[in-house]
Amino acid sequence: MKKQMIGSLRIGDEVETQAVVLEANMTAFSAPHRAGDHFLRLVLGDVSGRIKAVMWDPPAGDESVKQDDVVFVRGSVGEYHGPQVVVSDIRKLDPEKVNRAFFQPVSARDINEMTAELNKVIEKDIGERHLKKLLADFFSDETFMRGFARAPAARTVHHNWVGGLLEHTLEVIAFCRSQAEQYPHEINLDLLLTGAILHDIGKIEEYRQDSISFEFTDRGKLIGHICIGKEMVAQKLDQLPDFPPNLRLELEHMLLSHHGLREWGAPEVPKTIDAFALFHADLLSARLNQFTAVMGKHSPGSGEWTEWDRFLERSIYVPSEGEK
Amino acid sequence: MKKQMIGSLRIGDEVETQAVVLEANMTAFSAPHRAGDHFLRLVLGDVSGRIKAVMWDPPAGDESVKQDDVVFVRGSVGEYHGPQVVVSDIRKLDPEKVNRAFFQPVSARDINEMTAELNKVIEKDIGERHLKKLLADFFSDETFMRGFARAPAARTVHHNWVGGLLEHTLEVIAFCRSQAEQYPHEINLDLLLTGAILHDIGKIEEYRQDSISFEFTDRGKLIGHICIGKEMVAQKLDQLPDFPPNLRLELEHMLLSHHGLREWGAPEVPKTIDAFALFHADLLSARLNQFTAVMGKHSPGSGEWTEWDRFLERSIYVPSEGEK
Amino acid sequence: MKKQMIGSLRIGDEVETQAVVLEANMTAFSAPHRAGDHFLRLVLGDVSGRIKAVMWDPPAGDESVKQDDVVFVRGSVGEYHGPQVVVSDIRKLDPEKVNRAFFQPVSARDINEMTAELNKVIEKDIGERHLKKLLADFFSDETFMRGFARAPAARTVHHNWVGGLLEHTLEVIAFCRSQAEQYPHEINLDLLLTGAILHDIGKIEEYRQDSISFEFTDRGKLIGHICIGKEMVAQKLDQLPDFPPNLRLELEHMLLSHHGLREWGAPEVPKTIDAFALFHADLLSARLNQFTAVMGKHSPGSGEWTEWDRFLERSIYVPSEGEK
Amino acid sequence: MKKQMIGSLRIGDEVETQAVVLEANMTAFSAPHRAGDHFLRLVLGDVSGRIKAVMWDPPAGDESVKQDDVVFVRGSVGEYHGPQVVVSDIRKLDPEKVNRAFFQPVSARDINEMTAELNKVIEKDIGERHLKKLLADFFSDETFMRGFARAPAARTVHHNWVGGLLEHTLEVIAFCRSQAEQYPHEINLDLLLTGAILHDIGKIEEYRQDSISFEFTDRGKLIGHICIGKEMVAQKLDQLPDFPPNLRLELEHMLLSHHGLREWGAPEVPKTIDAFALFHADLLSARLNQFTAVMGKHSPGSGEWTEWDRFLERSIYVPSEGEK
Amino acid sequence: MKKQMIGSLRIGDEVETQAVVLEANMTAFSAPHRAGDHFLRLVLGDVSGRIKAVMWDPPAGDESVKQDDVVFVRGSVGEYHGPQVVVSDIRKLDPEKVNRAFFQPVSARDINEMTAELNKVIEKDIGERHLKKLLADFFSDETFMRGFARAPAARTVHHNWVGGLLEHTLEVIAFCRSQAEQYPHEINLDLLLTGAILHDIGKIEEYRQDSISFEFTDRGKLIGHICIGKEMVAQKLDQLPDFPPNLRLELEHMLLSHHGLREWGAPEVPKTIDAFALFHADLLSARLNQFTAVMGKHSPGSGEWTEWDRFLERSIYVPSEGEK
Amino acid sequence: MKKQMIGSLRIGDEVETQAVVLEANMTAFSAPHRAGDHFLRLVLGDVSGRIKAVMWDPPAGDESVKQDDVVFVRGSVGEYHGPQVVVSDIRKLDPEKVNRAFFQPVSARDINEMTAELNKVIEKDIGERHLKKLLADFFSDETFMRGFARAPAARTVHHNWVGGLLEHTLEVIAFCRSQAEQYPHEINLDLLLTGAILHDIGKIEEYRQDSISFEFTDRGKLIGHICIGKEMVAQKLDQLPDFPPNLRLELEHMLLSHHGLREWGAPEVPKTIDAFALFHADLLSARLNQFTAVMGKHSPGSGEWTEWDRFLERSIYVPSEGEK
Repeated sequence: MKKQMIGSLRIGDEVETQAVVLEANMTAFSAPHRAGDHFLRLVLGDVSGRIKAVMWDPPAGDESVKQDDVVFVRGSVGEYHGPQVVVSDIRKLDPEKVNRAFFQPVSARDINEMTAELNKVIEKDIGERHLKKLLADFFSDETFMRGFARAPAARTVHHNWVGGLLEHTLEVIAFCRSQAEQYPHEINLDLLLTGAILHDIGKIEEYRQDSISFEFTDRGKLIGHICIGKEMVAQKLDQLPDFPPNLRLELEHMLLSHHGLREWGAPEVPKTIDAFALFHADLLSARLNQFTAVMGKHSPGSGEWTEWDRFLERSIYVPSEGEK
Repeated sequence: MKKQMIGSLRIGDEVETQAVVLEANMTAFSAPHRAGDHFLRLVLGDVSGRIKAVMWDPPAGDESVKQDDVVFVRGSVGEYHGPQVVVSDIRKLDPEKVNRAFFQPVSARDINEMTAELNKVIEKDIGERHLKKLLADFFSDETFMRGFARAPAARTVHHNWVGGLLEHTLEVIAFCRSQAEQYPHEINLDLLLTGAILHDIGKIEEYRQDSISFEFTDRGKLIGHICIGKEMVAQKLDQLPDFPPNLRLELEHMLLSHHGLREWGAPEVPKTIDAFALFHADLLSARLNQFTAVMGKHSPGSGEWTEWDRFLERSIYVPSEGEK
Repeated sequence: MKKQMIGSLRIGDEVETQAVVLEANMTAFSAPHRAGDHFLRLVLGDVSGRIKAVMWDPPAGDESVKQDDVVFVRGSVGEYHGPQVVVSDIRKLDPEKVNRAFFQPVSARDINEMTAELNKVIEKDIGERHLKKLLADFFSDETFMRGFARAPAARTVHHNWVGGLLEHTLEVIAFCRSQAEQYPHEINLDLLLTGAILHDIGKIEEYRQDSISFEFTDRGKLIGHICIGKEMVAQKLDQLPDFPPNLRLELEHMLLSHHGLREWGAPEVPKTIDAFALFHADLLSARLNQFTAVMGKHSPGSGEWTEWDRFLERSIYVPSEGEK
Repeated sequence: MKKQMIGSLRIGDEVETQAVVLEANMTAFSAPHRAGDHFLRLVLGDVSGRIKAVMWDPPAGDESVKQDDVVFVRGSVGEYHGPQVVVSDIRKLDPEKVNRAFFQPVSARDINEMTAELNKVIEKDIGERHLKKLLADFFSDETFMRGFARAPAARTVHHNWVGGLLEHTLEVIAFCRSQAEQYPHEINLDLLLTGAILHDIGKIEEYRQDSISFEFTDRGKLIGHICIGKEMVAQKLDQLPDFPPNLRLELEHMLLSHHGLREWGAPEVPKTIDAFALFHADLLSARLNQFTAVMGKHSPGSGEWTEWDRFLERSIYVPSEGEK
Repeated sequence: MKKQMIGSLRIGDEVETQAVVLEANMTAFSAPHRAGDHFLRLVLGDVSGRIKAVMWDPPAGDESVKQDDVVFVRGSVGEYHGPQVVVSDIRKLDPEKVNRAFFQPVSARDINEMTAELNKVIEKDIGERHLKKLLADFFSDETFMRGFARAPAARTVHHNWVGGLLEHTLEVIAFCRSQAEQYPHEINLDLLLTGAILHDIGKIEEYRQDSISFEFTDRGKLIGHICIGKEMVAQKLDQLPDFPPNLRLELEHMLLSHHGLREWGAPEVPKTIDAFALFHADLLSARLNQFTAVMGKHSPGSGEWTEWDRFLERSIYVPSEGEK
Repeated sequence: MKKQMIGSLRIGDEVETQAVVLEANMTAFSAPHRAGDHFLRLVLGDVSGRIKAVMWDPPAGDESVKQDDVVFVRGSVGEYHGPQVVVSDIRKLDPEKVNRAFFQPVSARDINEMTAELNKVIEKDIGERHLKKLLADFFSDETFMRGFARAPAARTVHHNWVGGLLEHTLEVIAFCRSQAEQYPHEINLDLLLTGAILHDIGKIEEYRQDSISFEFTDRGKLIGHICIGKEMVAQKLDQLPDFPPNLRLELEHMLLSHHGLREWGAPEVPKTIDAFALFHADLLSARLNQFTAVMGKHSPGSGEWTEWDRFLERSIYVPSEGEK
């Protein structure tokens, strides 16, 4: 059966489709004759969008649904402060058996190809043996590698899809290389590439890996990917007694300072050229991706100006192809 | 011999005193007949102030002086862009044999008394056994305790003296307690006091312990006391396998967020009531100490207004005693 | 009859309850056959929440309802941009005869108990006779005392309930005391406590005392509680010719500067240690109360994270009791 | 004898002139043979500038000099961190007998003429009888009028001279009138002009009237001219029982809000059109005066660009006359 | 037929009126039986307000409607997230034949009268011959004059109506004159008035002249009225070879800097007194107009406080006439 | 004769060298016996630094010296608020005959080589014929090319040397290319490279080309390089009637918006992907150059931390080579 996409549901439609539960709240009826009873308010979603839903006689016990479940729903779209699915039937599905591509956006680039590209950087481009060993220790760990390859680079704004972290990392590598080409005497390329590869590994623990909607972990919200990442590197380094202490200091500094400014969440500002270059490579990748994402959502038929984007605080002018 | 204090040297004075070398630079002569020779430009200091100095024929080799040395100097005060000591004789002293009180300001409170007060808090007031154990592990370590008892709480602005960290920590404890008295149901006092005691331990590694002028370590400048402190706690906790994971998460969050705002260097903002209370207790101690320090430097004879303080961006009105 | 609470009304419910009129607008019909007629759009509220309402044939003349009236309403809940009561019957009630506790949130602490606690501070803790006299003059005035005991400390954000000003004042007193314990030589406790007690008295005139919804007075919006409070103090002091002029200056300065920063509405920044301490005590009470209010609205069943709070700009992590 | 102007003293000059003492500090000698003795460090000034001075054997007792004294000095200009007068002789002068024009800059406009212009506004242009009475009560008070006519409008930045307040007030009146011409239906001209005339009267008490260097009073620093001015108006209004309460509210609001933004020191932002217009008239007068003052200090011979002005954060382009 | 105004349409009304299409989107049906079909979502407006509309069987081909069309619509007002017209019939009208006054707000002042007033300024008040010639060249061009006389001064906030640019320009002229009266020696009145007249001419090209809803042109969004205006002046000046180069420089600077601050869009800050005065005159006109517009929308019956204005970030106090 | 470098002059040195006059002021003597006479205060400089100078009997008439003259000076270094040359002899030199390399820092890269590299980009990499023609028109103009090749990219902060504009432009090209490699479908490489090449051409007119100290032109200060550059492009485009209007719009937008943010001087923010990429390439080149310049001034012997840089607001950690 072809999946109905949430984003194209309209008032009056009959619904029979799969969805991920983005929010779920049991609410008591206020009407006296239903005293003690509860109904279920939901937000359902998939890659195409999100919609409110309500179920008046929800399943209980083991069959009750909660946030992040993947479900099959049947019902019809009514109106209550906007479109709302009145659900007649809901069933939990085994998340391992559904097509995650319906629920999670995935990188446009092939994940295996990107993995290979990253491994090649580690093998071919990092000459310094301690850094090479550190990276090998990380990326030869299959659990780590799987997490790294699937994680998004952010929940909103940029590279917010499966494989996004990997895709973002490769971009950051490219922008680091470009800076090293211009300032080869000042930049330590081996160190800069290592920083680029490891700068966001804390993201793997910042988002729940089993979460279809990239939920934050408690640790993600209380510690944050910057300090988690530094900790992950520190733990690996504790097992490499020969690693030069100053190199460690510089590498840890790069992870801590890669957001560049205190008000952007960096506990320290970049104080080495490599940390400074990493910050700018990260910024460039995030910003360009954010800008092109707004362009990507624009349909050519609706003129040359995209809708207002509240993050970029502007509309973007996208000249038609002919002109280009 | 009574020590001449640097702060009271005036042009025309003869100098025979001890000082700490705050800055030291060898400079080449530009005059042709001295080509190849160097002279030494210094900044000398003690608790009372700092002064420029110059020596035309400085000692070389093992006897050469460098930053943070304690020295005996003989010379006279001339004028070169302000008062400057022309040094005729300089000798390094054994830093262990000088009276450090001449070079480092020391807390007005007795360090042993403060140590006892802190230990009492740990023993009497912390009931939760995991937290008590963690604190005991830290403070029963004599090296740690010695470092903790001597470190300043900052290099400028507040509690910038030997014992300052300890003094500041006791104030933070008091302000935490005061908040817990008002909000006893919301605040977890055991956890809050533990956070108060540990919040600034990273300072011990942020400043060079052997430095008479509280120099930053490279690690202090590149990682910062917030992340160093969290790391110190993490290492101790790794050795306490029974420590409840959520308690660890909350405690680490408190250390990371105690500066309160990203622009003040907190990688995360406080997201628990205990972290929020700790931030405010720290703020209160730092700000009051800074304010009273400006009052302390004011001499009653010069009217009721202190000099302009560039950190507080104001003069302070200090009414005369009679009035009070 | 048990009162139906506004916050639990749901679409389809029949309504027979009391409410306060938060907004009331007469609107002309646009349909030609009702030309010249008006209907009434309302917002009704009580301590539990607020709801829209409409009445097609509203009472006129003396029986017409306006903002801040307490009314009995009968009707049913329909839907128009969300739930809306269609009112069939509405009658004004004598505000003195209704149970105000249904319409105004009240402090969790007993008001008489708090009043006694405050009076004890004035009698026992303030030694300086001029300050004691000033306070006595204020608090022995029954009208003043009644206003003080009932006023909220703010309309939103913190202590926004009957008795809130008194409750907040006692917290500020506690935080002032705590600072004086740490800095006993610098702080003038008598003066600081006097400032704490009087700092927000302008609130009594900033909100309409007879308003069930704590409406601002025109004076409150055009002059503000800071300048009103200073004026109230000035008027009392004009009747105390012996009051030392410098003490008066310091006290007036404390009232004017207690918001701490110009951008927070302080016409002057604190320039005495007592004004500085008062500012921080006020800040601490307001912030902690705001933080715990968000915690208080969180239902333990819905996980460990509260909803996003737009004033604090964060969700709060509230660990479950077991853990604590 | 023609007065030597401070601003044109150069190293090597002999000095015999009058000056006002801007700062005065007695300092102990550090050299042992002068133990117990003191010398006097001074800053001397007049309308043309300021210079450092030192006196090794200063007069004591009744003849000792302090800040704000007008003195006769004899000495010569040496060098010590820039030019410094070594004073051989110093004598206090009767401030009433010196030519204040040497020490205080004075408005370029005639003070009597400006006073007449202001009085004409009150008599001719204010029709509303309560406002007219209020103004008459103020300006018929000779002490008030004398203070008003002599006070500066600020200590730095704009109209910082004797008569500056009066000159600034007339400009604000003109800019208020100009706004009322454009928005005659919205603006209440009588009220706006009254606000313009009274908006800065707090300045009279913000600066010491007997101070040659426009020293702040304690009250000026702790209460500020905005709240002082409102208080002065309130006291006069208390004596006018017929004054309409709402008019009083609006007028007091205008005084409190005339700085326009909280961060510029306004306890309330302007919430009436008249308060809004007053704020802009005040802004315009202050800014234009500040801009033209920088132009006025520019000597035509040194090109078309003034020196950098740190308040305006720019150099100003002043095209030569011919061009204009 | 009397036009039904959009702003007074209420749910249940029958609609037969003219409107301008503010937004128009063709949307595919999601219901299977309408696959391939589209419906039309609209926003319709006139001077009185705006309303959503939907048409299930919209006209196609030449008769299809798009943004900025003026149309006749027939239908009825239903409810879908607020009032929405369900359109049964829609027809495009010839924009030249409708009464534009229904769709575009127009200045309260007569446009011819304002044009005459402006021309008089050019003829009588500008003495410098090069400036007079430049202005004459602009305003003798009928196409330019027509555009200038019809353009608004802004799309929102202030003078946002037909003739608004002209009305705003006359106000700016008045505020410039007022400044020149106070600072006659510093200000070059001829130049200042010329700058006032030309400062916003870029607006003519910033908004589409044929657009009933003052749509931005692409050029308006990508270049902006400041640089467009400077370019328009530069083109005219290229044809006046005798124009003094320095005068040109000053005039171009005035246009570029009239927004005053970089963050307000000025590529350069004002560096001449005339540019500085122009900036303030523009600011005053824009701000007062914005403030009085909020007052104008306030109905006297609903009390003395206007609704909250999100641009001014305040409610305005409008005392009732009697009081005034 | 080997040139004495200004930066190594010390008090007591005899001076016989060439210098550029950075500032020159004639000042009247205040001492009575020199009434009517003037002396000359100077600031002299070369690539190594700057020093104050004074000449008591300066040459007059044709031989008088002014800002930007290159001179031969003879004298000796005394002390007056720091080192100051007392000049006994001064003579103007023909600026064409001196070795400019003594007075102006020059790019470390060969200018001819950079010119060739730029020309190759224009010839090989720009395919779009209108853009290629536009660039050819600019760079085939020898006067333009000479100006472009010699201009600095800024007066301070980054690439502030002869050839700096060219060097900076090549870096910007490289960073543009790097972005286009990552986002090839979104970015129009021909347009982006054209923008990169032309983005700073306004600098040629912003600094006086004949000025040894890169003085600003009046036009540079009043119009700024952004608007000058746009104007230069517009003039060339007016001669290319076939140039597609939309391409022109996009190109002009890129020039206007390349500073990225209004507060950084951009009259418009980047609204196309190419403008956005150009902004980031420019930012990257400027920031890295600024960072490495601080590193370049650091002498390896003085430890691993550079001096505090007030623009970057930090010291930089430069690990010693061995470590790297």
